[in-house]
Amino acid sequence: MSRPATQPVSGMRDLLPRDAARRAYVIRAVQSAFQLYGFQPVETPAMERLSTLQGKYGEEGEQLMYKVLKRGRKLTQALASATDDALADMGLRYDLTVPLARLVAAHQQELLPVFKRYQIQPVYRAERPAQGRYREFMQCDVDIVGLESLDAEADVVNAGVSALQALGFDPGSDFRLRLNHRAVLNGLLAASRVPSALHATALVAIDKADKIGAEGVERELAARGLPPASVQALLRVMSNLGGGQKPPAMRPLLAEALAGHAAGQQGLQDLETLTALLDVGPAGPALRWDPLLARGMGYYTGPIYEVQFPDLASSGGGGGRYDELLGLFAGKRIPACGFSLGLERILLIMETRDMFPETLGQEPQALVAQIDAAQARCAHQIAHRLRAEGLRTDLFPEVAGLRRQFRYAEKRGIRFVVIIGADEAQADQAALKDLDSGAQVTLAQQETGAHLKRLLHAQ
Amino acid sequence: MSRPATQPVSGMRDLLPRDAARRAYVIRAVQSAFQLYGFQPVETPAMERLSTLQGKYGEEGEQLMYKVLKRGRKLTQALASATDDALADMGLRYDLTVPLARLVAAHQQELLPVFKRYQIQPVYRAERPAQGRYREFMQCDVDIVGLESLDAEADVVNAGVSALQALGFDPGSDFRLRLNHRAVLNGLLAASRVPSALHATALVAIDKADKIGAEGVERELAARGLPPASVQALLRVMSNLGGGQKPPAMRPLLAEALAGHAAGQQGLQDLETLTALLDVGPAGPALRWDPLLARGMGYYTGPIYEVQFPDLASSGGGGGRYDELLGLFAGKRIPACGFSLGLERILLIMETRDMFPETLGQEPQALVAQIDAAQARCAHQIAHRLRAEGLRTDLFPEVAGLRRQFRYAEKRGIRFVVIIGADEAQADQAALKDLDSGAQVTLAQQETGAHLKRLLHAQ
Repeated sequence: MSRPATQPVSGMRDLLPRDAARRAYVIRAVQSAFQLYGFQPVETPAMERLSTLQGKYGEEGEQLMYKVLKRGRKLTQALASATDDALADMGLRYDLTVPLARLVAAHQQELLPVFKRYQIQPVYRAERPAQGRYREFMQCDVDIVGLESLDAEADVVNAGVSALQALGFDPGSDFRLRLNHRAVLNGLLAASRVPSALHATALVAIDKADKIGAEGVERELAARGLPPASVQALLRVMSNLGGGQKPPAMRPLLAEALAGHAAGQQGLQDLETLTALLDVGPAGPALRWDPLLARGMGYYTGPIYEVQFPDLASSGGGGGRYDELLGLFAGKRIPACGFSLGLERILLIMETRDMFPETLGQEPQALVAQIDAAQARCAHQIAHRLRAEGLRTDLFPEVAGLRRQFRYAEKRGIRFVVIIGADEAQADQAALKDLDSGAQVTLAQQETGAHLKRLLHAQ
Repeated sequence: MSRPATQPVSGMRDLLPRDAARRAYVIRAVQSAFQLYGFQPVETPAMERLSTLQGKYGEEGEQLMYKVLKRGRKLTQALASATDDALADMGLRYDLTVPLARLVAAHQQELLPVFKRYQIQPVYRAERPAQGRYREFMQCDVDIVGLESLDAEADVVNAGVSALQALGFDPGSDFRLRLNHRAVLNGLLAASRVPSALHATALVAIDKADKIGAEGVERELAARGLPPASVQALLRVMSNLGGGQKPPAMRPLLAEALAGHAAGQQGLQDLETLTALLDVGPAGPALRWDPLLARGMGYYTGPIYEVQFPDLASSGGGGGRYDELLGLFAGKRIPACGFSLGLERILLIMETRDMFPETLGQEPQALVAQIDAAQARCAHQIAHRLRAEGLRTDLFPEVAGLRRQFRYAEKRGIRFVVIIGADEAQADQAALKDLDSGAQVTLAQQETGAHLKRLLHAQ
């Protein structure tokens, strides 16, 4: 028989037990942190109408979207029409924000006017596969729908930072939270006399500062058609205000740069208020103002923020206020803001820094060995007894040599092996072997669980 | 602005907080039960090569499969070729068994020779949507790969039954576990002189006994072309052995019926052994032999089993041994058996029987109200303090009237509200209101968490 291809499809991954368990551990910690902040879970289908998805992610997004082929008669008709657009009417989830917007519109009557939701589900993008870039990856979002108040921003940011804390990251030293406001950014561009038609292209260049340096940005800005005076003005702004600094150092400079730009000054005022709220929470020590932080998505309308790890070129998460997006589906304006954790990148950093606990609380704590077919029922029985006492217990599921069973236990990281031969069964006893020390004791069967718990507790 | 369609696509669901939380609760209980039995998690991508999926699920399965449209140049080329088969080369996950087979083949070197895995992920089938039938639904599988021994069957069955127990179902009274063996079934068909070419069609008719009764089955068998003598023989088997009975009642009858059918007798012997192993575990009280249980999937080769709830027409889960399937991918025979929990149906029964606990351990335990913009920092601060003490705490994220905030708390099921006005802030105090009793006490801020814990504990 010819052997078919068995690797996962390009850009996607099989998660073997170690990685699946680590991912589950991280997701669980994130969920608990979100719940600690009062957020509620929702889930949306993997498929959405193409009309829901299209026009939301820009031209590139449109190309990276997976489309689901029509079936049956609809497909036959589409083939006859011979335009490839007609072949699909659904696509796969591309992010969690557009589905949230659709869900809020669909269920307005059932949801509270202030809706704090979290959602942790995979999304699909046909990116060119590369190291650390996948076509199926998990997103982890918290959003508050229905509030204009900056308290909402503080809440989503703190929930995200608190999730990072729960995973072992210290906001004081392990990462920074860069904070900006769209109005401040626009004010700085206006103050530098960048024509508004060139704002977007200028930001793309400025966003590369980390990678290409000030001179690189200068070249890029010129190449993108900015007037020389604007280029020079922007470079001054970058050198004074770029890179992320503590708010007190930045206030006077920023106020000066925005003098005469009312919207920018209002943005600065919002930054002040938000900073005061964040200062008393977990995000406080990580906080930096970065007036040139842009974040790609076009739909942000107010404060924007981004988690920055020193050992990561791209961001570890971020978000902002997007007061216009939900209206596309709801037919009326609904303010919202959110924070999205970069789960895949966080997993990568935790891997690199060896941050996972040695046991994730799901590995078996004991193996029941089987050395005698006549005692099989007895082996099953003691395994059930241990499980009933809450001990995660693997049963070697056939009679085999002890060496083979010990090797299996070691490979699965199980330290304690319970052995019942004919003598033990006869006497209602069990032998308990500690593979680490080699020590073996014989116990009454009904004592085994309690004894094992004491040993595990002493570990 | 014209309002776009906002309902989820046909056959798929948005899960709002209550349902998402209940589902998460059930999945968590199932995971813990699987871990208690020593199973390890894996995950596979939502997409598989079409060549992986095709030829595994029968003709109907092929039609229900979602295919993902090719993109870019590959699509252009496919359109030129004008056969609709060429338009897609990937499809969505249709079950968890075929992906397991592919994963085991792909990672043979990394996996232990005995591999106990669980997998809980959504699958996609373009079924006609109906009450309780969805196009995206969760599957929950445990399997043991690499073992011929019946201990493996006992392990997967017990893990599944123990998951049901953890959810509150009693194996003695709430459901039955029907047990059969493919060789017994084949033996009975042979003993009834059903031509082997008609085995499959005869089983389809017999499978309907619950719905159409013995007379209905008689008519169906005749219509499906069985010789009259075979029909009468099968009806006798049905009336003697059908429907599920306790093993002791059935042994002599079954031994007699299979006299002279060596494979069937070996199957009966396996049933005896498996029953002895299951008897000492959680599945024991639920156990019934049902020699006419067929289960649809063609790939079963040994024992088969099915969870039957009295209030459910279709099964609540089941599985069996499938020693040939993995070879399709691995290029060598690898024995395996598994058990799949019918998660969606279990959720439905739990809903109907009102089996969910009142709180799922993730709802907020306190709401911090905001009544004075000047005390916003103080409100955020006390919310953080409570969270740091492990209390799930929602912060009403803007200043508003207390009535509105109380109403919000009630709608979210939060009983305790923390209120800090100017006076309280001044004195480092907080008011704590119990919305159930209406009682309100004033406490030192640093005492609030401990006091709240006492109240929650007394609940």
